[in-house]
Amino acid sequence: MQLYFTYKIENNYAFLDEEEMQHAVKTLRKKQGDRLHLLDGKGNFYEAEISEIAKREVKLKILSTKPTVLPWNFDLHLAVAPTKNADRLEWMLEKVVEMGINSYTPLLCRHSERKQLRVDRLEKIAMAAAKQSQKSILPKINELIDFEKFVRSCNADQRFIAHCQSDDLEPLRNAFKFSPGTSVLVLIGPEGDFSPEEVALAVSLGFKAVGLGKSRLRTETAGIAACHTLQLFGG
Amino acid sequence: MQLYFTYKIENNYAFLDEEEMQHAVKTLRKKQGDRLHLLDGKGNFYEAEISEIAKREVKLKILSTKPTVLPWNFDLHLAVAPTKNADRLEWMLEKVVEMGINSYTPLLCRHSERKQLRVDRLEKIAMAAAKQSQKSILPKINELIDFEKFVRSCNADQRFIAHCQSDDLEPLRNAFKFSPGTSVLVLIGPEGDFSPEEVALAVSLGFKAVGLGKSRLRTETAGIAACHTLQLFGG
Repeated sequence: MQLYFTYKIENNYAFLDEEEMQHAVKTLRKKQGDRLHLLDGKGNFYEAEISEIAKREVKLKILSTKPTVLPWNFDLHLAVAPTKNADRLEWMLEKVVEMGINSYTPLLCRHSERKQLRVDRLEKIAMAAAKQSQKSILPKINELIDFEKFVRSCNADQRFIAHCQSDDLEPLRNAFKFSPGTSVLVLIGPEGDFSPEEVALAVSLGFKAVGLGKSRLRTETAGIAACHTLQLFGG
Repeated sequence: MQLYFTYKIENNYAFLDEEEMQHAVKTLRKKQGDRLHLLDGKGNFYEAEISEIAKREVKLKILSTKPTVLPWNFDLHLAVAPTKNADRLEWMLEKVVEMGINSYTPLLCRHSERKQLRVDRLEKIAMAAAKQSQKSILPKINELIDFEKFVRSCNADQRFIAHCQSDDLEPLRNAFKFSPGTSVLVLIGPEGDFSPEEVALAVSLGFKAVGLGKSRLRTETAGIAACHTLQLFGG
């Protein structure tokens, strides 16, 4: 089923932005009166009929609304330092959106080589992956943020920092305690890992240091492994 | 630590092929008498001294040999139909080698769009990923093989076929019963999934049909998820 994300709902009308419109109207030649299936990225599914095709948006009359059920019932937030090579980050984002996340925050760390990021590009990748894997929510992609600022502002129920500075870390799979509705945040460092000071700061703020198994993983692989672990052990 | 894979051991001498030589001699300017750390891809680690640099290979005298211990003690074989886009397959292979596999077989299925494959390219990717993640074994990359021929020839202790044709499949995480030394094989289909006939044939031959969770995953994501599940629940 072809799905579209609506960016705005107003008075029983849904709107597609220019990009979604491009696909519906230019590529698939949808016309006034045609019916589309829409998601609002917040868990709702709509059937709607095209009522107006304007220059930069499509207006659709909502015919029916149905709340959808997410395949997971907890809040999963990944904060991963962007990889030096942007492709690797983009791949990771696609994969974790397919597996299921609620938010992604790019972290600017002591050892980060990449200090800039195009969030709009990441949003597009997340949207495509959400559609492709038929997710009814769009993960929130946050702006790049300084590590210290971020860890001082987090309030997830379960906060973890995964690093490679010890072989004796408790595995994330054991440290994570699932309960319905729990919120969990995992931090993953850049290619050179977190600095010892960053780990110490996070731990002092209530983060639990965890490992992701015995294999040495690249940053983007660690992000995928963390997400997959939480999805496997979550509900 | 910089590691090299030796492709041949003879009479207490190890040899690097042209590609490894390129890196050691051309890029890192290693010379006669320099010491290198080698892996044979079968679980052994060597310290060796360059004794001769020939045109197409480097000969090294082995100074010490140490068997290494793999981080997992079972045999993990993934057989995944190559994705239409070769990048996706190559990326998957990198990730599963980082996480840990023993062998990979590309499958030619009813719905396969990609019917050809450069195994030598995959071998290079696997070698780079094994080095990068400091694995002492090199996974075996098999030639592309017809689905039916392959499933009729498999003899792993635990054989699974992961598909998307039912929502009620037992999850791989529950179906996999770890015991030290067990051999496990998971089949993953192409973009259009396995055909019902392929699933039926595999099941009739003793494969257990399993699911990989509630999210709809792309082929390459399914390969990563299967490998990660087995590594999490394996020893």
